[in-house]
Amino acid sequence: MSAAADPRTARNARWLGRSDAWQQLETPALCIDLAALEYNIEHLARWARGAGVGLRPHVKTHKCQAIARLQRAAGALGVCAATLAEAEQMVVAEVGSVLLTSPVVGAAKLQRLQALHAARPGQLLAVVDTPAAVAELAALAASTGRPLGVLLEHHAGQRRSGCETRAELGELAAAVARSPQLVLRGVQHYFGHLQHVADPAQRRTQVLAAAAELRDHLAALRAEGVALEIVSGGGTGTLLAAAEAGVYTELQAGSYVFMDAQYEDVLGEDTMLEFHPALYVAARVTSVQSAAARGCVTLDAGQKALSIDPPGPRLRGGGAARGSYAFFGDEHGRWLLPAGAPVPARGARVDLTPGHCDPTVVLHDAYHVFRGGELVAIWPVDARGY
Amino acid sequence: MSAAADPRTARNARWLGRSDAWQQLETPALCIDLAALEYNIEHLARWARGAGVGLRPHVKTHKCQAIARLQRAAGALGVCAATLAEAEQMVVAEVGSVLLTSPVVGAAKLQRLQALHAARPGQLLAVVDTPAAVAELAALAASTGRPLGVLLEHHAGQRRSGCETRAELGELAAAVARSPQLVLRGVQHYFGHLQHVADPAQRRTQVLAAAAELRDHLAALRAEGVALEIVSGGGTGTLLAAAEAGVYTELQAGSYVFMDAQYEDVLGEDTMLEFHPALYVAARVTSVQSAAARGCVTLDAGQKALSIDPPGPRLRGGGAARGSYAFFGDEHGRWLLPAGAPVPARGARVDLTPGHCDPTVVLHDAYHVFRGGELVAIWPVDARGY
Repeated sequence: MSAAADPRTARNARWLGRSDAWQQLETPALCIDLAALEYNIEHLARWARGAGVGLRPHVKTHKCQAIARLQRAAGALGVCAATLAEAEQMVVAEVGSVLLTSPVVGAAKLQRLQALHAARPGQLLAVVDTPAAVAELAALAASTGRPLGVLLEHHAGQRRSGCETRAELGELAAAVARSPQLVLRGVQHYFGHLQHVADPAQRRTQVLAAAAELRDHLAALRAEGVALEIVSGGGTGTLLAAAEAGVYTELQAGSYVFMDAQYEDVLGEDTMLEFHPALYVAARVTSVQSAAARGCVTLDAGQKALSIDPPGPRLRGGGAARGSYAFFGDEHGRWLLPAGAPVPARGARVDLTPGHCDPTVVLHDAYHVFRGGELVAIWPVDARGY
Repeated sequence: MSAAADPRTARNARWLGRSDAWQQLETPALCIDLAALEYNIEHLARWARGAGVGLRPHVKTHKCQAIARLQRAAGALGVCAATLAEAEQMVVAEVGSVLLTSPVVGAAKLQRLQALHAARPGQLLAVVDTPAAVAELAALAASTGRPLGVLLEHHAGQRRSGCETRAELGELAAAVARSPQLVLRGVQHYFGHLQHVADPAQRRTQVLAAAAELRDHLAALRAEGVALEIVSGGGTGTLLAAAEAGVYTELQAGSYVFMDAQYEDVLGEDTMLEFHPALYVAARVTSVQSAAARGCVTLDAGQKALSIDPPGPRLRGGGAARGSYAFFGDEHGRWLLPAGAPVPARGARVDLTPGHCDPTVVLHDAYHVFRGGELVAIWPVDARGY
């Protein structure tokens, strides 16, 4: 890694390897607690081995080659990508097969997909959810002369993309079978709408119901001789139930790698899989002048550094006793102090756990990676954009 | 502009100068309606000349050298910057003096400010809100041997930064006077909390009350012989009242250049200054399969392309009769179709006006600049980050 040469990682590169990096860092800055990240990756990998299910982590959460390589080293089958930019970064990171989980629509993006497939044949997997998508990908694969693996997408109750009925699944399978350069690899069945269902029992019931419907579809297709090796689905909020369902060959968890306040709340009572908060935004106190009158001080991290999704950012370490965070415009936040708490000094450092990790990451260009108080690496957010 | 050489602007560069660019564009993509942008810049500049007040547009909204140059060409005195990254980009854009509107806190950022001041002496203006800030900037200016212009900051009722009392203003002025390399240029008085007060009459009353308090402070300081040439404040939501108050020498409007759904709502009944929506996100329909069952289609622009602030994104052109937008996860949106409306085709293009312009801009790397249907330029978001 040549941090200083990359403008994305240059700003704080001078603190690399220094024990005072945590205090000196220019803020706001997106940071990783490397011990927690490594724990999350290893913890899920060990659980998946025990549960007999594969892992295909979703890189939409981190968009980072270095993190995908850690996931691969822990045994991931490959990765999921939500965007072409993510897929382009991941095929060069050598992290196994890359499943593009959203349909690619529009001539310009299909051209990019074609170029990527031609450059790295055999590494990409794409989803198809309509006969039009099958025709487009068949033409793309034929033009490169290289077979392209595809998964039939079912809507899984979310209805964001994916086909609706068993008959449509059968028609898509037949259309793929008629396309010489397309290879049917399996089915994608992602229920994004169930990941944050608050009640664990209700979440489990809904996942098992969706999986049961899928099991019937798969049995009918297989009875007609359709080979479906991969069944890909599930996410951080539904790992246990998706494994219990026994129908998925691989799980697409993304957020587990970082965690956030949303998933802390969702998974709080569902502790068989306990992940640690690994992502935070480093902030600094910029004004203490109205602390006496208003019980708060001003921080240099606002809506351009932290996603505003509920439940919003939280102070990292020490819990509610340290106080709470509130947005204070686009560039600033308020640290609301508990009654009687000492007022932090102008310039004091504080860390904030985002309310929602994915939309916080895309606000930043790089991760500042800490082990203890030492800044050990700066990793670019490689796959910003689309 | 060498669009193809810059990775931020490369993705859609092949559509430059083509009349089918609007349809072909890879989506989601941040776009500017250049005619609307030029109208907004010229409209505010003409109004300010008539009102006898100066303009110092805030570049935190756009973070773009090309747009700042258009504002400067229309008569802006200079620009405001919220971050060091913005100030660094603006001093090389040659757009007049650059006022850093937030205090710079922390040794590392003070070093960057020192380097910037040394490289471009006379071009920066900084705010001071505490004796500590005066001492830090005095040391910085002394070390460069070049005078640095400063503005005393008063909290203006927002209390995000800035001093509290008239006595504190006097003490700051005296501390600046004792610092050989600091030059007192004036006062900053920015009431960010009043920009979005919904009722125009109430907004005006609150601005005039804040301005009256400031007028008393300025009179007292001037009676003690303190020279205060610049009085900087106001924003897009408070232009009329701030000009009426007669105390500000320059207004810091930022969002007027783009407008957004928030300001459309705030300024809707306050029509002496009518700005046009100039910023939008180009999106594409990626799934229509559940349109019959659910009355909506899926778009490829979600929370990673559009700020989620209320009132949320709106369909551009045609108003509510075209339907409405709802978020559908991080990478997708829903286009909710009016009853009986025809279902758009898979691949159809649609444009979305953001709910809040500033936090939408920072999600993107470049602006796609359209005049009519032609893509005439791609401008990088130069000052992403901090």
